[in-house]
Formats: sequence, structure tokens, C-alpha cells
Amino acid sequence: MPMLALIRHGQSQWNLENRFTGWWDADLTEKGEAEAARAGALLAETGVDFRQAFASVQTRAIRTLWLALTEMGRAWLPVTKDYHLNERHYGGLTGLDKAETAAKHGDDQVHIWRRSYDVPPPPLEAGSDWDLSTDPRYDGIDVPAAESLKLTLERVLPYWTSDIAPVLTADTNTLIAAHGNSLRALVKHLFEVPDETITGVEIPTGNPLLIELDASLKPVAARYLDAERAKPLPELP
Amino acid sequence: MPMLALIRHGQSQWNLENRFTGWWDADLTEKGEAEAARAGALLAETGVDFRQAFASVQTRAIRTLWLALTEMGRAWLPVTKDYHLNERHYGGLTGLDKAETAAKHGDDQVHIWRRSYDVPPPPLEAGSDWDLSTDPRYDGIDVPAAESLKLTLERVLPYWTSDIAPVLTADTNTLIAAHGNSLRALVKHLFEVPDETITGVEIPTGNPLLIELDASLKPVAARYLDAERAKPLPELP
Repeated sequence: MPMLALIRHGQSQWNLENRFTGWWDADLTEKGEAEAARAGALLAETGVDFRQAFASVQTRAIRTLWLALTEMGRAWLPVTKDYHLNERHYGGLTGLDKAETAAKHGDDQVHIWRRSYDVPPPPLEAGSDWDLSTDPRYDGIDVPAAESLKLTLERVLPYWTSDIAPVLTADTNTLIAAHGNSLRALVKHLFEVPDETITGVEIPTGNPLLIELDASLKPVAARYLDAERAKPLPELP
Repeated sequence: MPMLALIRHGQSQWNLENRFTGWWDADLTEKGEAEAARAGALLAETGVDFRQAFASVQTRAIRTLWLALTEMGRAWLPVTKDYHLNERHYGGLTGLDKAETAAKHGDDQVHIWRRSYDVPPPPLEAGSDWDLSTDPRYDGIDVPAAESLKLTLERVLPYWTSDIAPVLTADTNTLIAAHGNSLRALVKHLFEVPDETITGVEIPTGNPLLIELDASLKPVAARYLDAERAKPLPELP
């Protein structure tokens, strides 16, 4: 039965600065790099024979994967990068300091933007400093103006079905390095978590979530590799 | 017209120890990592819009590419890794100290193994400490027992034709991170260098060779990006 490991990238420069990041391409801090290497060491310890990896097109997830693969002695694994695995797009909040935003809009409004399932934040204005629509990595792609978790899931899931699930169905052990919300969307799908409770599911950074799947890709076992830094997992479906 | 950059990996641990390496997966030293980042900085300075990268399945070439892409802000580029771009397989010399080997077999014999076009070194014995035939990255691949430069070229060239040339023909600027002899094989092909003189062509480490190709993939201009560390290039064909 195939094994799937989900890896949320380590600390980025904007995590450190407490800014809404979304699709902005903040890189890892030194602490984030160390978290990535530690994730790789934990993955190596499992002895699972991983043969394929996926990542978003965002530097912090890609470099988390690279640092983990280096630690695993598996730099040679095929890696597919795709924007469908990107973080939720934070729209007009991108670049803003989280505390300042709460002071301006109120804690309740910010809580809704951050923790509701289907309310997107205000859209990013075209031409804003944080507008990525002309970034060459998004050539030919409609960069969203803002995404709720629901919209994120509606982006992630078709890619899971078209590109990742077939690899797992072929019994290939697979790594995915991505982001808090794109991984949350996958967890929602795999564990059949209701809309009402999914935003309460936290995936810790740099702590691989190892999931054993059955032939229909239903989770039959799941655990965080660093038990001390684990968060509660949804029940198995 | 497409641009092609060839990057020979920086110093590896076995380069430092003066051992024959070939397919053995020696990693970069810190000096090698710095060379790779410098190569990335030089590539970024060119302003060329690279969109695709290739590497061998050997860690030192892959990590050279990763460190260069990081420096270029292009971690997101698609990267294809393939054993056809591996270093020449050094057969029974793998793992041996170069000076000890010369003392044992004589300088003339070692010179022939290192610098002849079509004389392979003695084969690697099956079950040797350096036998890689059970390495999972070579599943389904006949790992050679030893290769001359000619055999290396006969491995590299079909892959160039099937996988790399079509990308360039589509006018996609492309990076290749590989090894002294797999890149020498490509240079022989591109610059139409005769068998007799190709082993005299040295490609410096960590110094990208930028080649402008015409629509038929014939080089029309070529230069090393670090002019001070350049080596003589073959004439344009």
C-alpha cells in the first residue's frame, strides 16, 4: 500500500515578520532551512522507499523539499512542481503585517478571513507591489485575486486527481512539499473533514505527516514523524 | 534563437581526495557549493530567461543546479534528471587514489585511461564496494562496468536528441548541470570536435558555458561567463 508524506515548509522570512504571504515568494529563514533538513532526517529514519516528489512553484516549499531530499540521500528523485500546490492566495492582505491588519479591520474580521472556510479576503489590486500576474512562473496561468480555503481546495483537488493520485495508485511512495492551506485542503479531502471543522486543523511546519493509504487512496494510518511537535489529526475516515 | 548553458559541477569530496569518481555519488564540498552559487550569480547577470533545466542523477550535479537556481531566483524551473547525463563510468578505477593508481599502473597507462577517446578503463568487479547496480536510482537500468569517452558520448547523445534538443528547438532557453565528460561529449557533438582532439578540451568547474544556438541547434556564439577562469573553446563549427 502506498505511503504519502506531506511536508509543510519551514519558517519563511514573512512568517518571521508576521506578514500575510500567500503566493508571495518569501524564502526560508535559516530556522526554516534547519526545519527542512530535520524533516528529511525524520523521513530517512522511516525507511520508506520514496520514489516521487511534488512541490508548489514557491521557493520556500521547493527548497524545503530540496533540503529534505539532500538529507535523505535522495536528491535524484523526480520532482514535479506545480502552482496547483501553491499556498492560498491572500489577496489584498498580501504583504500586510498581521497585527496592523487586525488593528485596522478588527480581530473579528481578520479571524473570518483567516479561519472561515469560504470567505475570501479582499482582492489584490492589479498593479499592487504584490501583484504576481507578470511573474514568468505564472505564464499562461490566471493568477487569482484572492482565495478562500474552499477556492484553494478547488484548485488543489483537480491536480491531486490528475497528477498525484495516479502515482500513488501505481504504488509509488510519494512526498508532497507545500503550504499550510494547500496541505489542509488535501487533508480535508483525504480524511473527509467537514467544512465546519477543517480550518481548525493545524499542520505543523517541518514535521512530515506520514499517511498510509489503501488501494483506493483512503488513509488507513497516519502519524506525524516528530511526535513531540505533533498536532491533533482528524479521525481516519 | 535558443540559449544553452552548460554547468560542470563544483568541487566534490572525491575531487578533493583526488580519487577516481565516475558514477560514485560523491557530494559537493563547501568550496563546490560556493562554486555553484557563483555560477548561479553569473547566469542571473546574463539576463537570459531560462525556462528548463536538466541534470544527471548524481547528487553533485543536482545540488550544483539547485544552488545555482536558488541564486537565480528560479527554484521553480522544471528540472529533469536522467542518468544519461551522468559522468563517465570509471570502472575498476572507481574509488582509487589517482596518484596511487599511477604508481601502480604507470603514468602512461593512466594517461591512456584518462585521455584516450575510446579506451575504457578496466571493468568494475561485480560486488565491489563501488558497485552501484543495486542503487534504487538505477532500477531497470544496465549500469555500465566501465566507459570510455566514446561510450559516454554514445549514452549522452541519444538523450540529447530525444529529450533536450526538442526543448531547444521550441526556443526554450535551457540549463544543463552535469559532469566533465558528459559535458565534453555534448561539446564534441555541438562543436563537431574530432575524436583526436576532444579529450584536450577542458570545461572548468562552476563556470557556465553559454552557447547561442541557431534554429538547427548549431552554435553561433559561445563564451564562459567567468572570463578569468575560462579555458580555450573549440572553434565554432
